[in-house]
Amino acid sequence: MRIGILTSGGDCPGLNAVIRAVVHRATMHYGDEVIGLRDGWRGLIDGEHRKLDLHAVNGIIGRGGTILGSSRVRPELLRDGVRHVLDVAADLGLDAVVPVGGEGTLKAAWLLSEAGLPLVGVPKTIDNDISGTDVTFGFDTAVQVAVEALDRLASTADSHQRVIVVEVMGRHTGWIALHAGMATGADAVVVPERPFDVERLTRWVNRRFAAGKRFAVVVAAEGAKPRPGTMPFETGGRDEYGHERFAGVARQLAVELEGRLGKECRPVILGHVQRGGTPTAHDRVLATRFGRHAVDAVHGGRFGEMTALRGTRIRLLPLARAVERLKTVPRSRYEEAECVL
Amino acid sequence: MRIGILTSGGDCPGLNAVIRAVVHRATMHYGDEVIGLRDGWRGLIDGEHRKLDLHAVNGIIGRGGTILGSSRVRPELLRDGVRHVLDVAADLGLDAVVPVGGEGTLKAAWLLSEAGLPLVGVPKTIDNDISGTDVTFGFDTAVQVAVEALDRLASTADSHQRVIVVEVMGRHTGWIALHAGMATGADAVVVPERPFDVERLTRWVNRRFAAGKRFAVVVAAEGAKPRPGTMPFETGGRDEYGHERFAGVARQLAVELEGRLGKECRPVILGHVQRGGTPTAHDRVLATRFGRHAVDAVHGGRFGEMTALRGTRIRLLPLARAVERLKTVPRSRYEEAECVL
Amino acid sequence: MRIGILTSGGDCPGLNAVIRAVVHRATMHYGDEVIGLRDGWRGLIDGEHRKLDLHAVNGIIGRGGTILGSSRVRPELLRDGVRHVLDVAADLGLDAVVPVGGEGTLKAAWLLSEAGLPLVGVPKTIDNDISGTDVTFGFDTAVQVAVEALDRLASTADSHQRVIVVEVMGRHTGWIALHAGMATGADAVVVPERPFDVERLTRWVNRRFAAGKRFAVVVAAEGAKPRPGTMPFETGGRDEYGHERFAGVARQLAVELEGRLGKECRPVILGHVQRGGTPTAHDRVLATRFGRHAVDAVHGGRFGEMTALRGTRIRLLPLARAVERLKTVPRSRYEEAECVL
Amino acid sequence: MRIGILTSGGDCPGLNAVIRAVVHRATMHYGDEVIGLRDGWRGLIDGEHRKLDLHAVNGIIGRGGTILGSSRVRPELLRDGVRHVLDVAADLGLDAVVPVGGEGTLKAAWLLSEAGLPLVGVPKTIDNDISGTDVTFGFDTAVQVAVEALDRLASTADSHQRVIVVEVMGRHTGWIALHAGMATGADAVVVPERPFDVERLTRWVNRRFAAGKRFAVVVAAEGAKPRPGTMPFETGGRDEYGHERFAGVARQLAVELEGRLGKECRPVILGHVQRGGTPTAHDRVLATRFGRHAVDAVHGGRFGEMTALRGTRIRLLPLARAVERLKTVPRSRYEEAECVL
Repeated sequence: MRIGILTSGGDCPGLNAVIRAVVHRATMHYGDEVIGLRDGWRGLIDGEHRKLDLHAVNGIIGRGGTILGSSRVRPELLRDGVRHVLDVAADLGLDAVVPVGGEGTLKAAWLLSEAGLPLVGVPKTIDNDISGTDVTFGFDTAVQVAVEALDRLASTADSHQRVIVVEVMGRHTGWIALHAGMATGADAVVVPERPFDVERLTRWVNRRFAAGKRFAVVVAAEGAKPRPGTMPFETGGRDEYGHERFAGVARQLAVELEGRLGKECRPVILGHVQRGGTPTAHDRVLATRFGRHAVDAVHGGRFGEMTALRGTRIRLLPLARAVERLKTVPRSRYEEAECVL
Repeated sequence: MRIGILTSGGDCPGLNAVIRAVVHRATMHYGDEVIGLRDGWRGLIDGEHRKLDLHAVNGIIGRGGTILGSSRVRPELLRDGVRHVLDVAADLGLDAVVPVGGEGTLKAAWLLSEAGLPLVGVPKTIDNDISGTDVTFGFDTAVQVAVEALDRLASTADSHQRVIVVEVMGRHTGWIALHAGMATGADAVVVPERPFDVERLTRWVNRRFAAGKRFAVVVAAEGAKPRPGTMPFETGGRDEYGHERFAGVARQLAVELEGRLGKECRPVILGHVQRGGTPTAHDRVLATRFGRHAVDAVHGGRFGEMTALRGTRIRLLPLARAVERLKTVPRSRYEEAECVL
Repeated sequence: MRIGILTSGGDCPGLNAVIRAVVHRATMHYGDEVIGLRDGWRGLIDGEHRKLDLHAVNGIIGRGGTILGSSRVRPELLRDGVRHVLDVAADLGLDAVVPVGGEGTLKAAWLLSEAGLPLVGVPKTIDNDISGTDVTFGFDTAVQVAVEALDRLASTADSHQRVIVVEVMGRHTGWIALHAGMATGADAVVVPERPFDVERLTRWVNRRFAAGKRFAVVVAAEGAKPRPGTMPFETGGRDEYGHERFAGVARQLAVELEGRLGKECRPVILGHVQRGGTPTAHDRVLATRFGRHAVDAVHGGRFGEMTALRGTRIRLLPLARAVERLKTVPRSRYEEAECVL
Repeated sequence: MRIGILTSGGDCPGLNAVIRAVVHRATMHYGDEVIGLRDGWRGLIDGEHRKLDLHAVNGIIGRGGTILGSSRVRPELLRDGVRHVLDVAADLGLDAVVPVGGEGTLKAAWLLSEAGLPLVGVPKTIDNDISGTDVTFGFDTAVQVAVEALDRLASTADSHQRVIVVEVMGRHTGWIALHAGMATGADAVVVPERPFDVERLTRWVNRRFAAGKRFAVVVAAEGAKPRPGTMPFETGGRDEYGHERFAGVARQLAVELEGRLGKECRPVILGHVQRGGTPTAHDRVLATRFGRHAVDAVHGGRFGEMTALRGTRIRLLPLARAVERLKTVPRSRYEEAECVL
């Protein structure tokens, strides 16, 4: 067979491990040919590609980024160009395509699959917001990077008697904030799923100071918002792709808390370091397993499905189910964590 | 309630996170008193203990080791002293005990539970060999440490055209070897579950050199053994606790491979760095969840059970089931990895 | 003797290592008593202190922050309160004081020394801007943290064809930017010592793209400014202590470059992670040596001096000399680096 | 000009950064051509080489190993083949050679320089044992790796009441042991420069336990030896290159101490992880500066010299001086550290 692979959307540690696993499994076990499509869907629109053999994926398992490049494509472009994409795939002689990407990519994949492109998806998101899989690669690395930063910041906060508000990634879901907060014993975590009450947050932090502590750490997911009317809050609007823009919740919250607490409050925005660089061992193993099983799924004719982790096993599930709704943090996990407002 | 907690057996990153979570949940949610028992079961034999309040567990979530200390106790000592332990627990006024430990500890816990000690176990092992839970805290850290070392070693092996045989922990199971090998793209992995064929290993490595590579990496679990008769091999015998001693498989295998390959082969033994120090974010979260749910289980009267991860949820399961057999690497996982001999 | 020690100013990895070394040397070698003054100069104004014995400094060598706390004190407060400080020192029975701090602290120390307080300084700054010493502890850690972040960011930039502008610490000097830029092969570095020409910067980055590269990394010291008139630029003004406020050079530069290059430019502000947390081995050794030599200097009566590294040796030099001017990056180092605009 | 570069001897983090800096400086500033010689001196004996342009060194600054490969060559081979090497250099049209290597390499370089080969050396050693330079790249990384391992091991030793004897690199000098020991507050350090007294070591460790500590850490350089007659000790003999073999001092010392102390003592051998993998920021900057200055030295006709760090500056000094004796740890540094036996 001739299998095309592409990586699409934002960066995510583990992409290269998927590519490597796909090439290893396909070429060594099945004797397939693997074609790397350049810069995500763009490669399938423009036909830009290169052959991937064992040599091409040598030593990449632990490297950040993606050797295939990635780009954002406006959803309309794919929607209106389905016919064109099918033609390009045919011209390239592709028997199957393995797109590796997040929610947007998987939606596009589902659309193309419905239109007849033989395709097996691999979910990718540092945000852990894709339904149907226990977790995706990239998330563990993002949390680990955030935790290392939080550990560093906590020692300063402690010595210098400060409140720090640390903004981590998560526009629509609070998974990274929840895990990073739990792993560092943060005093409070605010998430997009639950508009926060700044009154209550202030009480929590004050109670801590009353108990003799000299500092506090608040972890805020990028997309967290206060309950309307409880504090002044500017949203960031939307960008050209229709995505919500960065609203600067940490900065706004730090100003508000400083006023309410009468203590020095500092915002810290961790930003893109969370989504790049060397993946953790956990993410490398998961990405490798996803890659291998995607190739097996191609050979099993399981088109229109994607790989997923369930417990300790890799399963396949219909793309339609994965994209029907975002996987948000459920109430049971908030309550378990206790630090979520 | 008055809850005793103890940590027993070898070191494991995440122990302090469990202790912290138990104290937080018990004191803040239930208003319990928590008693830390010193040096594992010894604390319950000698009655050595101290009160644990929020202050005592401040800042420990990310620290290696255990603030309670640990020690190895010969199994007979507990078996013959069940009556005594029950008396000590009664003298200390304990309503429940939460032992955190590996297979040996959980077996002892089960024995004591059968004898009437109200007890909820928390599994702990870097080896990932406890049945009934998808994974235990400590394992992710051990694999991560091994992977960081393997990444360092691979760059040297590549520049200096060597075969390195890296010995990782795992006397009875090959989980660490499997994951560390998968995460670094090792050329071969040998595990205790499957005696290896040194002929075949030699062929694998040679094939690699034939394909133009200049180095090779073999990952060996401590307890891996060659198929009888295929190469000279000295076992390490047993120690005073009846545990198998370290046989030095990497050293023996490196000598054998050097002879067969005619290339420089170097053994590296990673050793105890894998079982100590700061836990990964993954292990901190899991340990925290285990600690919290153990306290809830105590209040739910779920004695004789232990916490376990199943998919994304924490469940309880009977200790008897957890200790009935070691969780070894199943055939399906070997085959998936392809690098296991 | 009875020696007081205090840590003052912003956080800096290695402070605890200095404290530990002072306590070890003073108590074990000289039989001195060491008094820890709370929250920097405030401890010497309010008299808040505690005794530091070996037990108090156990296990702190690798921890971030400072067990003594720190605070910022307005310079006037010390200047006008010299008499009072001398009285407090006398009341506490201090034979000598060892202040550990940056430029502001050392200036205050010099003032107090002139007024008769027996005092030996230990320089501390992540910015490496203190004259008379080759380097100070904290700097190596700050650069290492910045480099780890830059490594992560570069892999994303490469895969996603972006220009990233990474802002590192350094309000008055470009040492961190220079070293972090050199260590990661950054395409351009802008520093406070040399107002940058945005035209030239654009040319450099464009040349890179012309050579077939798909991304570029610009490192900007916090205090870097464009040459007047070359691009719109808002400064951040000054805070209540008279320090320059954060102007957001990365953000402003990214906007400008995006316009000029027609490529996606992203600002990333590393912020306070650079000044907290576990010190590198290098900084722990240097801090330990400074601590020890400060105690020896006290016993040698070398008051009014401070510790300094010269080559491989620790020397003492007059505080007056250390504070006479900030150590900026010399022209020879720019030229050597070649990446500095 | 046409400049040849080679990397020789054991692995050392920073080699790729030197290669990159040589290529950048030579090609971009001087318009030179750079030739990479394969596998150290072997490339100059066999003539195996490849052209190095900017593209070839792209992204290597932070990678471990050496893209040129390395190998050990028996000294006689070079000594007897000087004529041949000069011929190969002439055939390749080399105007100068930049060998990057340790003591052995620099000795060979000096020999060849005396014989007329135009050559500028770059010192390389993780052991920090080359005279005339404050430090060499690779050393900081080796110490950092050892310190991270020691931090992990200490938490286990503390929880489990053990004495650990950690063996770090250093066959002839104790620099790594000294710095790693100082940076982690080790209880005792033994080094090759000073045969240790096991009686005294036992007293030190016992004193510690008497003071209420529950564990102890001893750092041993590979080449440390007991004073003759104080304990049984087997040396490792010599290998085919005449180098001393690994004697296993940690293992032998742990057995001896266990007998003397009546406590569990565990040896841990860190091994080759110390000499491979990603260099620290410090080593990348130093390696980059050495590479650049080596090219400037070539253009300045400073043949027969090598780059060196003195204070904050890069200097050149005659190879003859660098190789006349090994730089051992001086008495003043032992005494300063206080933990060295």
